[in-house]
Amino acid sequence: MFLIQCLLQKHAKMNKIVLLVHGGAGPDSKFIKENIAAYNEGLEEALNAGYTILEAGGSALDAVEAAVNYLEDNEIFNAGRGSALNEKAEVEMDASIMNGKDQSLGAVAIVKNVKNPVTLARAVMEKSKHTYMGGAGAKAFAESINLEMRPEEYFITDHALEQLQEAKEENGEELEVAGIKQRSHGTVGAVALDKDGNLAAATSTGGIENKMEGRIADSSMTGIGSYANNKTCAVSGTGDGEYLMQNVMAFHISALMEYKGLPLKEACSYLMHEKLKDVKGDMGIIALDAKGNFAMEYNSARMHRGWKTSDGEHGVKIYE
Amino acid sequence: MFLIQCLLQKHAKMNKIVLLVHGGAGPDSKFIKENIAAYNEGLEEALNAGYTILEAGGSALDAVEAAVNYLEDNEIFNAGRGSALNEKAEVEMDASIMNGKDQSLGAVAIVKNVKNPVTLARAVMEKSKHTYMGGAGAKAFAESINLEMRPEEYFITDHALEQLQEAKEENGEELEVAGIKQRSHGTVGAVALDKDGNLAAATSTGGIENKMEGRIADSSMTGIGSYANNKTCAVSGTGDGEYLMQNVMAFHISALMEYKGLPLKEACSYLMHEKLKDVKGDMGIIALDAKGNFAMEYNSARMHRGWKTSDGEHGVKIYE
Repeated sequence: MFLIQCLLQKHAKMNKIVLLVHGGAGPDSKFIKENIAAYNEGLEEALNAGYTILEAGGSALDAVEAAVNYLEDNEIFNAGRGSALNEKAEVEMDASIMNGKDQSLGAVAIVKNVKNPVTLARAVMEKSKHTYMGGAGAKAFAESINLEMRPEEYFITDHALEQLQEAKEENGEELEVAGIKQRSHGTVGAVALDKDGNLAAATSTGGIENKMEGRIADSSMTGIGSYANNKTCAVSGTGDGEYLMQNVMAFHISALMEYKGLPLKEACSYLMHEKLKDVKGDMGIIALDAKGNFAMEYNSARMHRGWKTSDGEHGVKIYE
Repeated sequence: MFLIQCLLQKHAKMNKIVLLVHGGAGPDSKFIKENIAAYNEGLEEALNAGYTILEAGGSALDAVEAAVNYLEDNEIFNAGRGSALNEKAEVEMDASIMNGKDQSLGAVAIVKNVKNPVTLARAVMEKSKHTYMGGAGAKAFAESINLEMRPEEYFITDHALEQLQEAKEENGEELEVAGIKQRSHGTVGAVALDKDGNLAAATSTGGIENKMEGRIADSSMTGIGSYANNKTCAVSGTGDGEYLMQNVMAFHISALMEYKGLPLKEACSYLMHEKLKDVKGDMGIIALDAKGNFAMEYNSARMHRGWKTSDGEHGVKIYE
């Protein structure tokens, strides 16, 4: 018994810890080019926020929430403060979180005034009898459990206002016509592996600029924006929501591992660059398995991303 | 060329057409037992509404919308008129639709006053630049395209008020506590195969009685409530939403077919009765492939269901 305990402890100590974050995949822009240092610093800070928790023996769930919270608070990223604005210049946010240990999950859609939507998603998971809530009811729930709320002005940045203006000018009269390609303005997300071998995933977004009031992002959808299962992987997705939804992106990676027998990296590479190579939309995923193997794949001009592992791998990148 | 056309026409004529409908899976009740004839008649009418379209050469998409529209309008089913009421005795509805031909999709969450939520989901797909909308924005969109709207009273039935009262009495003080098992009150859905070999799926629900304001059902979620892909299958799910979400039910069937190589019936049976045999919640699925093979699996006391095919298979059932 003592020997088994020693072995278990040794095994626990040897477990790799990993945190991956992303700040969205999509087209390049002048704004991104001018703010590379700020983006990289933000990704680094998000890594620190989550990795500190993992290093101290904390849970993957706490780590992904903390990393996403940081990205929600940093106005340069499109989630929480700095969210893209809808056509009425309002902020409506979507987020989800999932625990790989038991597949428990929480998600929120079109929420207003909640400082950290992913924390509300976690509260839906842990403190409500439901798993997915939206709109006025989700906001009322946030208030009832005393989550941090902010006035609308807190969320709205000059950059978001400029982006909205640009989108309105570009699309002009065509806004109401079906089939227009959506401009993806980014998402933030994180996946983590903790010392106990548990995985978690979290995703949060302000959506796309100039969206219609009430538009819900894939970021809030289990199996699409976020998925976590210790037996396979944790995934957070970003990009053009329509394509992520059509292809059930996050769970798709898990299914490729479980049913096609692909290792994590091959599953991500196959899905993104073979099976979906003809998809016209921008897509990006960060993915991690319980052994600490990870992948960060995208088909777009850039994906803001960062990684840090107990094996000493550590970096942030925007382009190739 | 002429020969090929003849062969194609002959092939088209020989294609099997199939429509499956469901009116929810879950626990049995006194109300259900007392209304077996009305439920069976409703399922039969829903089959007629959709099958007539398929017989006339119409699309699977039109057929599933028509079948679900009928079930939304029939107050005995929990969708549209007759929806379960939330804790404030209000109606908030969720629906989704997906086209197996090109994986285009539309979905709506927590919508009020829209007579046929699944028709709004289809309008989001075809007439908006988005795929998923909710709350006030979704309602505003419905009004902007002149969908049929109804006052709140239209949706609220005596039975729904009784169910709400019962749920409030049963749960009492415990309503706010996490982890309480959700009572699934049903859903409606349809999957169809048309003469051109196209599949489609649609799902609609009023959710669960006494739900918190803002609760969103799995019925609105792509890959969970509805999924359709001509290469694999069309699926509509029902039951306890939390478990359907955790297991990404609808797309899971598709993944089992595509990546584990299981035929449709085996995929449904394996997922429901082997892989998820220990899941404590109620789950049900209706599923159909492009050859017309179909399955209707559930792990609960009953699932209201109906089927009709051009091979002469035809029936409605509630229990085994």
